[in-house]
Amino acid sequence: MTAPLPPGSTIGVLGGGQLGRMLALAAARLGLRTAIYTDREQDCASDVAAFTVSAPYEDLDAVRAFAARCDAMTFEFENVPAAAAQAAAETAPLRPGVRALHAAQDRLIEKRFLNESGAPTVRFAELSSPADFELAGAQTGFPAILKTRRFGYDGKGQARVETAPALAAAFDALGGGELILEAMAPFRRELSIVAARGLSGEIEAYPLAENRHVGGILRESRAPAAVEPETAAEALRIAEAVLTALDYVGVIAVELFELEGGELLVNEIAPRVHNTGHWTLDACGCSQFEQHVRAVAGWPLCDPRPHSACVMTNLIGEDASAWAELAADPEARLHLYGKAEARDGRKMGHVNWLGRL
Amino acid sequence: MTAPLPPGSTIGVLGGGQLGRMLALAAARLGLRTAIYTDREQDCASDVAAFTVSAPYEDLDAVRAFAARCDAMTFEFENVPAAAAQAAAETAPLRPGVRALHAAQDRLIEKRFLNESGAPTVRFAELSSPADFELAGAQTGFPAILKTRRFGYDGKGQARVETAPALAAAFDALGGGELILEAMAPFRRELSIVAARGLSGEIEAYPLAENRHVGGILRESRAPAAVEPETAAEALRIAEAVLTALDYVGVIAVELFELEGGELLVNEIAPRVHNTGHWTLDACGCSQFEQHVRAVAGWPLCDPRPHSACVMTNLIGEDASAWAELAADPEARLHLYGKAEARDGRKMGHVNWLGRL
Repeated sequence: MTAPLPPGSTIGVLGGGQLGRMLALAAARLGLRTAIYTDREQDCASDVAAFTVSAPYEDLDAVRAFAARCDAMTFEFENVPAAAAQAAAETAPLRPGVRALHAAQDRLIEKRFLNESGAPTVRFAELSSPADFELAGAQTGFPAILKTRRFGYDGKGQARVETAPALAAAFDALGGGELILEAMAPFRRELSIVAARGLSGEIEAYPLAENRHVGGILRESRAPAAVEPETAAEALRIAEAVLTALDYVGVIAVELFELEGGELLVNEIAPRVHNTGHWTLDACGCSQFEQHVRAVAGWPLCDPRPHSACVMTNLIGEDASAWAELAADPEARLHLYGKAEARDGRKMGHVNWLGRL
Repeated sequence: MTAPLPPGSTIGVLGGGQLGRMLALAAARLGLRTAIYTDREQDCASDVAAFTVSAPYEDLDAVRAFAARCDAMTFEFENVPAAAAQAAAETAPLRPGVRALHAAQDRLIEKRFLNESGAPTVRFAELSSPADFELAGAQTGFPAILKTRRFGYDGKGQARVETAPALAAAFDALGGGELILEAMAPFRRELSIVAARGLSGEIEAYPLAENRHVGGILRESRAPAAVEPETAAEALRIAEAVLTALDYVGVIAVELFELEGGELLVNEIAPRVHNTGHWTLDACGCSQFEQHVRAVAGWPLCDPRPHSACVMTNLIGEDASAWAELAADPEARLHLYGKAEARDGRKMGHVNWLGRL
């Protein structure tokens, strides 16, 4: 068992967006310093970090030099280039590790890994050339969803395919190459579980959240979700299976489809703190950000039980212009990310609305 | 009515200790940037600030240049030199203002101000030379406490005087000069009220805390204190009187003695966030730090009502070496200030222990 990092240690974060920012705030509470590595000139986490390095992720010398100044490393987005993650991991402990990144960066590898770990998903098939069309279509049935294997987010990089003959056009529209065809899940609702595994293998999970996406972007999470005890138990079983299979350290989010019969399928995993866990900032004594920092620093995990129920609503783009009104609402616990420009679809902040458990 | 500062604005803090640090964390949550001015080379608030200026408070050009980069100014300690505060206030809005600093920096001025504002204190007398001994002693009676008028903290700069003839020796021991003789208050316990006044004059107060000092240093606060409704009402009346008289903007702490009969006397006021309000970090939706930031930024005040009861214990000096044990205790909400050296008497962190209201 490795000793926990003492107060005053520095946690390096690859990525400088709002997740890095909220990690830095949680780390500071525990007397830990945060350093930010970002490929942007300015990023919102820097305002609360002990220091920031701005350099491309492809500059492996810069990544190594950064990691050498840190006592442990983590990341706030799953598309960290593999070489950068590897360079960081060779210099300081990277938590979670490259294995988790590898499993989460490619939809095909992710789904294969999930099924092998005992986490059910929709049916799916690899699709790399027109020669795969027939077999893939037979595996998924139609309608199906054709997706790029990498770098998809917020609904980008995917197309719904109604019938087998429509596959060719969708293949071309997505630029061909390495794709995955996924069966449609006739789901009743979207759930997620945010869980953590500590350095010594202990696992703690927050209650499930029920999530609503609009246009591929999360609008709202309600937690704890009203679910059957068996559903909660199955979600926890899935999270534990994934965490254990990856020898994971840190917070993970598992997005789930709940089918009409109550069965759960994993939509995807995010090897990081997650938007569907932002409700924990105000409804729990210990947020997902503190939980992740504790895991990365090798500290014991904290108690994830909420003291309140919560509805979290994202402030997207111009939503954030209502800040003054929200600041005046005694029911609204407001969080703003310090981003200068409110571009369309950009997550600018969120509001936690607390209620009785 | 002045418009509230929009997200992205910068709040400048004179002082870079743990109070500045916790103010910066609260500001970041609201999308506001914090800048730190400190006369030390390294200070613990800098790790979470957008930028830091290290320069003496006597360097008024540096203070002005700092304030010019900020949209509003505040301070985290009451011994800000008057000239520095004045220079800051002439460059950017200083909240609270120089009037509050003036009233809090000198025990004699403070007590006169309090009594004029309708806030009762112990009897006291100015004592600047041996010629004052007889009259001062007659005003307070004995035993009494002789104190320096300025720069006393954590029990420093004071001496108990048992009898009139002992006054001369105590006068010499404190170096003579500008002193104040105070009557002893036969108090049952020490209470405090942390309250805030917004830019438009609204006042919100947290419930009273009951405080225990050891060797002049706060060890423990319990909140809400178990007090009679009349005691709570009188504390609020005193806080409101002081805030209004000072045309105050921000959080203030009023330290109170509760006498045997239930009567309240003001011990002192602190024109800033205060150690006896640290319990609000975990027991309230909105902490004293967020409340102060809101006031300084001209935002509406938030709801100060706690969701839990709390016992706050300070981690002083070597107390903080128990961090690993405290981090593992699910009942302990741990806060560490990121200070490198655990010197004797130095406040290194605190723990909030929550309970049912």
